[in-house]
This record gives sequence, structure tokens and C-alpha cells, in this order.
Amino acid sequence: MPQSFHLVILGGDGIGPEVCDQSVRLLEIMQPHLDGVEFQLDRHSVGVGEYQRSGDALPQSAFDACLASDAVLLGAMGLPNVRYPNGKEIAPQLDLRERLQLYGGVRPIRLYHEADTPLKGHGPGDIDFVLVRESTEGLFYGRDAIADLEADEATNLLRITRSASERVCRLAFETARRRDGKKTVTLIDKANVLSSMVYFRHVFDEVAKEFPDIKAEHVYVDAAALFLVRRPQDFDVMVTENMFGDILSDLAAGLVGGMGMAPSGDIGDDAAVFQPSHGSAPDIAGQSIANPIAMHLSTAMMLEWLDHPETRRAADALNAAIADVLSDPTQRTADMGGNLSTVEITDKIADRLSKRL
Amino acid sequence: MPQSFHLVILGGDGIGPEVCDQSVRLLEIMQPHLDGVEFQLDRHSVGVGEYQRSGDALPQSAFDACLASDAVLLGAMGLPNVRYPNGKEIAPQLDLRERLQLYGGVRPIRLYHEADTPLKGHGPGDIDFVLVRESTEGLFYGRDAIADLEADEATNLLRITRSASERVCRLAFETARRRDGKKTVTLIDKANVLSSMVYFRHVFDEVAKEFPDIKAEHVYVDAAALFLVRRPQDFDVMVTENMFGDILSDLAAGLVGGMGMAPSGDIGDDAAVFQPSHGSAPDIAGQSIANPIAMHLSTAMMLEWLDHPETRRAADALNAAIADVLSDPTQRTADMGGNLSTVEITDKIADRLSKRL
Ligand SMILES: CC(C)[C@H](C(=O)O)[C@@H](O)C(=O)O
Ligand SMILES: CC(C)[C@H](C(=O)O)[C@@H](O)C(=O)O
Repeated sequence: MPQSFHLVILGGDGIGPEVCDQSVRLLEIMQPHLDGVEFQLDRHSVGVGEYQRSGDALPQSAFDACLASDAVLLGAMGLPNVRYPNGKEIAPQLDLRERLQLYGGVRPIRLYHEADTPLKGHGPGDIDFVLVRESTEGLFYGRDAIADLEADEATNLLRITRSASERVCRLAFETARRRDGKKTVTLIDKANVLSSMVYFRHVFDEVAKEFPDIKAEHVYVDAAALFLVRRPQDFDVMVTENMFGDILSDLAAGLVGGMGMAPSGDIGDDAAVFQPSHGSAPDIAGQSIANPIAMHLSTAMMLEWLDHPETRRAADALNAAIADVLSDPTQRTADMGGNLSTVEITDKIADRLSKRL
Repeated sequence: MPQSFHLVILGGDGIGPEVCDQSVRLLEIMQPHLDGVEFQLDRHSVGVGEYQRSGDALPQSAFDACLASDAVLLGAMGLPNVRYPNGKEIAPQLDLRERLQLYGGVRPIRLYHEADTPLKGHGPGDIDFVLVRESTEGLFYGRDAIADLEADEATNLLRITRSASERVCRLAFETARRRDGKKTVTLIDKANVLSSMVYFRHVFDEVAKEFPDIKAEHVYVDAAALFLVRRPQDFDVMVTENMFGDILSDLAAGLVGGMGMAPSGDIGDDAAVFQPSHGSAPDIAGQSIANPIAMHLSTAMMLEWLDHPETRRAADALNAAIADVLSDPTQRTADMGGNLSTVEITDKIADRLSKRL
């Protein structure tokens, strides 16, 4: 009997469905080559488009399917200027993180070709680190507040809990242990100014003791932003608060080609969602010019996460196929100065993938 | 009768005094060339060293002198691991900003030579923008809180007030108006998630109406971090919250040579303090290897800010003398891969300065 993996597929909004479809195509290409593994694909409609249709951006049936799944593959969600009647922005990806308690935003950053980085003197693999962003609290804790625009002030609370800090720090140390890297976790904080960060650092230091084989260090967030542009090669795994992680992960993506190159896994204890870090880019939707690389890299992360020898083999093959294609800097989509379409660059990856499986 | 400017000189800690002394030397060189202008230099001891001596990092007499002065020139303050008895870090520069209500952290970023930037394809003047950081509230509002490390959580409040937002936004628009740039102010916020940022944006939009000649735009902070590495040439003046400004200004300094190249002016209605953005770097103090460029650029900012035709002429001459020296990429201190000492590079600037005055 093959092991069956229940994968929920959420295309979402804007370019989400078109990049997601291409990853599904790659999954279908792999399937016959994998021994004793079966993918069950379960598609659901979510996002701002779904909100406009049904009044619910994240219908209960889709949510339940995510919870029951082995993993979720998501394109992108969100559309600018569509708001709830109370004026609040619709941010279904934040709802998903919160409702599924996807506490660990795992964002790998890897340079495939020197042509892709705005930095001087960096070649393939030189930049290769993982940023782990806490995704359920921090400054985003206050996101439900509504500001009174006529008042004299507005506030938001940054909240750090022991339990959320422990689990995200553990995830970071486990990530460093699994990676073939410098075996180092760097906490990015602002403990010289903020008491919540003194607390975060305290919990991090406690968790670090559970991982004596991994080096633990601290860098202030302002210095980290500078180090990322001046010596990104020094980082292995970074862990940080939600807002800091949001800022630093976009900066990091900028170092390796932009948001179209940045995959992510939102990891929880009950579910895991894999999606490109980019948004729904409605301005270019439907033209098949979107860069699907981040989506495909997210798919490889998912396959590795499923943690079956055959899905791990598939993940390695997919990562290698992507690296093969990207080793030729003329093979790029428009966002990176190339002229391949979403489908064309996926065709090339599919071709390499079949040969490697 | 010459116009007399009362300048308070605060060397501070670590490398502060040695870089500050070099700027004072430049002021003394200019003095005889300036018509009808006299500098009265008034030195005070402040910082963590002063705290260790007298128990007060910012003695009342120094504080009063700052308030009574035309401008303050500060080296650097702070020493790691020296704390108040209650465990709080000593951050006299934050105290100074708060007590003197120095609400506008003006941080100009300018590239002098392509050798100084880690980015490909940028030459002198390509990167040339000003980041204005709100410096009295935002997430730093909560900095007096003390965390209970045994508790289940720790919090800090991000606070945005109308009055502080108005004054810092006005400063940003005035800066854009005065600069020979794109006449654009970019608000960096996170209004898609945080209500305090919706509020900040609202106040910014109101203030923007007072400056119909200046273009106003908004960019989310995560996107701003990415844009800074991918197309820094697009920015003119940016204005943002305290914590965001802390992160983005270090990142920006990284684009033009590091903290040793980043001057700042902390501007209030009752006082103005000019200082390099870097810290006190006690590890290299006393060796005359510190980079004094940020200090000298801060001195030029101060001279411009004094707003007398002769101090403005002196500011232009100093800026030009620095640019002259930096046009030869072998003329650098150790932090930038060169071998000039703090005094030697200042000698070269002094030489150019005398010729230009
Ligand atoms: C779209 C936005 C709400 C989201 C965030 O801020 O988390 C995005 O920037 C991200 O990084 O996933
Ligand atoms: C030293 C530190 C407290 C300070 C800050 O965070 O403001 C520094 O980073 C700065 O940017 O001036």
C-alpha cells in the first residue's frame, strides 16, 4: 500500500493560482517516479476573491481541510483596496497563520547565480541562510486594533510570550541542526532598548541550552540589517520577532533576486503551509509572466517536510532541477530581466526534474 | 561685532572623544576664514564614563548647556555591559533625545565612491537620500519598562501621537523642499497591518497638504527594506517611526560604506545635536584608527543648520573637502579597508578645506 499524502492546494488571489498550478504540474510529473508515495490533491478557494464571492476569505471547509492535511500549498492571497466593512484590511494569510498557529515562518535565502544579486562579489551558494520569523505574536499581536483617526494618539502592543518564543526558538535550533551549515543560530533582537526583547533573549538563551551542539549568538536588529548587506555569508539560521522578521526577510530576498526567489514554510504543530513570500501582484496576474521559482522552491520545502525517503528524494531532485535552470542567467522571468513565461521556465525545470528522478 | 555661536562639545565614550577632537580641529581651522562668525566651544563630560565618575551620565550642567546652545556636537556615548543598579542599560543618547525632545533623527546617506558600496553599478552621488527617523516615541516609547523574566509574557507599547507625527513629517517635507533632489517624501509604514500606522499615515497625508510642491508617497516597511538594496537611487526623503528608522538607517549606512560614513542630526525645537550614527566602539578606542568621516559630515550638517551665510559656506567647503579626499579610494581608514589613521585622514581633509575656504 502506498503512503498517501493529503495535500491541500490553495491558489488564492492574483498570480497565486497561476504559479500554484505550475507547482501542481511538477507534483504530477514526479508522482509516477516516486515509490510507494501517492499525492492526494484537494483544492479549495480562499482569499479576497473568495471573500468577494462568499463573504468569507477562509471558508470553514477550507480551514478544516488544512487542519486535516499533511501539508498545504498556497499561491498568494490578498487584493489591495478590498476591505472589510469596518475598514480593516483583509489579510487572509495572517488569519491563516493565527488560526492554524503557524508560529514559525521559515524563509530560506539562497543565491543561485551571481547575476541575481545586487551585491558585488557573491556567487552561487555564497548567500545561504534561513530566517525563522515568529508569526503569531510580536508587534502583529496588535493587528486587530482599529485606530481612531480623530484621537491624539494611537498605540499597538508588542507581545512576546514564553510559550511562543520557546517553540519558535526550538524550531530555529532544529533547523540549524538539520542544515549543512555553520550550526549557528543568531537571535535578532533589540535587547538594548526593549524589555520584551530582554525577555525574548532570556527565553532564547534557555532554549539554546537544549542544543549544546549548536552555537547561539545575539545581534541587534539594526546591526543585523547592516550585516545582511555587508556580509550575508556569515549567517546560518536567524530567529526573530514577527515585525523584525517581516522586514529582514524582504531585505534578504532582495539580496538573491527579489520576492520571486523567496520561498517560505509557515510551520505549526497541527499544520504547515508552504507558499512563496511574495504577494498576489494583481497588476501582472493572468499574463503568465509571474516568476514561479519561489512557488517551486516552496514546493520542494513541502516535500522535504513530509519527511518520507521518497518525498525527500523528490525535494532534492526539484531543488537540483531549479538550480540547473538558474545556472544559466538568461533563463529568467521578466521580474529578473529575462523573457521566459511562468510556464516556459517551469517547462525547463520539469525537463530537468524528469531526468533527475 | 561678529555673530557668536555657542557650540557644546560632548566627546562622550569610547572613540567619541578622538573623532570629536578631530572635528573640533576642523572648526578651529575654519574659524579665521569666516567673516563675522565666532565659535564659542563649550566642552562637557557626558556618557557612561561620566556615569562611572559622577553617577550621572548626563549632568544637569551639561544638559543646561545643550539647551542654551546654538548646537551640540557629540562624539558617541555608551559602553557595553555597564548598567544601572536596576539592570537597565545606560543609553544616554536616548535620554538626550527624550529630554531635549530631539524628535527628528535626520540621517543623510550619500555614496562618495563606487569602491565604498557593496552594491553593483553605483557611483558617486547615485545613492543620495535622507532618512528622517521619529526619535521620541514609536516603539521606543516603551523603553522604560522592565521585564519580569519569570512571567509568562512581556510587552512593549508602540505609541504614535499626532503632535510628534506632525512635527517629524513637517521636518521631512521641509528637508525635501530644501534639498536639490526629487522633491519627494516617502512615508515608510506598515499601515496594512498596524492601526498605529494607519494613524501615522493619516497624519502624514494631512501634513502633505501643507506642501503641495512636494510629492508624497507611501511604502510598506518590508518593501522599503527590499527597495533599499535593489534601487536605493529612487529615494529622496524618507520619514518613519523610531524603530523602523533605526533598522533602515543602519541598512542604508551599509550601502555607502558602513556606520563610519553615516552622519546624523537630532533636531528639536529647543536644541539640535549632531553626531555620527555609529556607537562608541570601545574595542578600538584610543588607537586613532576610528573613521572620523561620519563625525566630520555631522559637523558639516551642524554648520549648515546654524544657517548663517558664512557657516553655510563653511559647510559646503567641508563637504567638498571630504568628497575630494574620498574621491581617491586608497584614502580610507581601517574599517573601510584603508590604512589611514583618524588624524591622517583628517589632515587630508583639513588641507583641502583650507584651500576651499
Ligand atoms: C502581506 C503582509 C500582511 C505580510 C506580512 O506582513 O506578514 C507579508 O508582508 C509577509 O511577509 O508575509
Ligand atoms: C544605541 C542605540 C540605543 C541607538 C538606537 O537604537 O537608537 C542607536 O542604534 C542609534 O541608531 O542611534
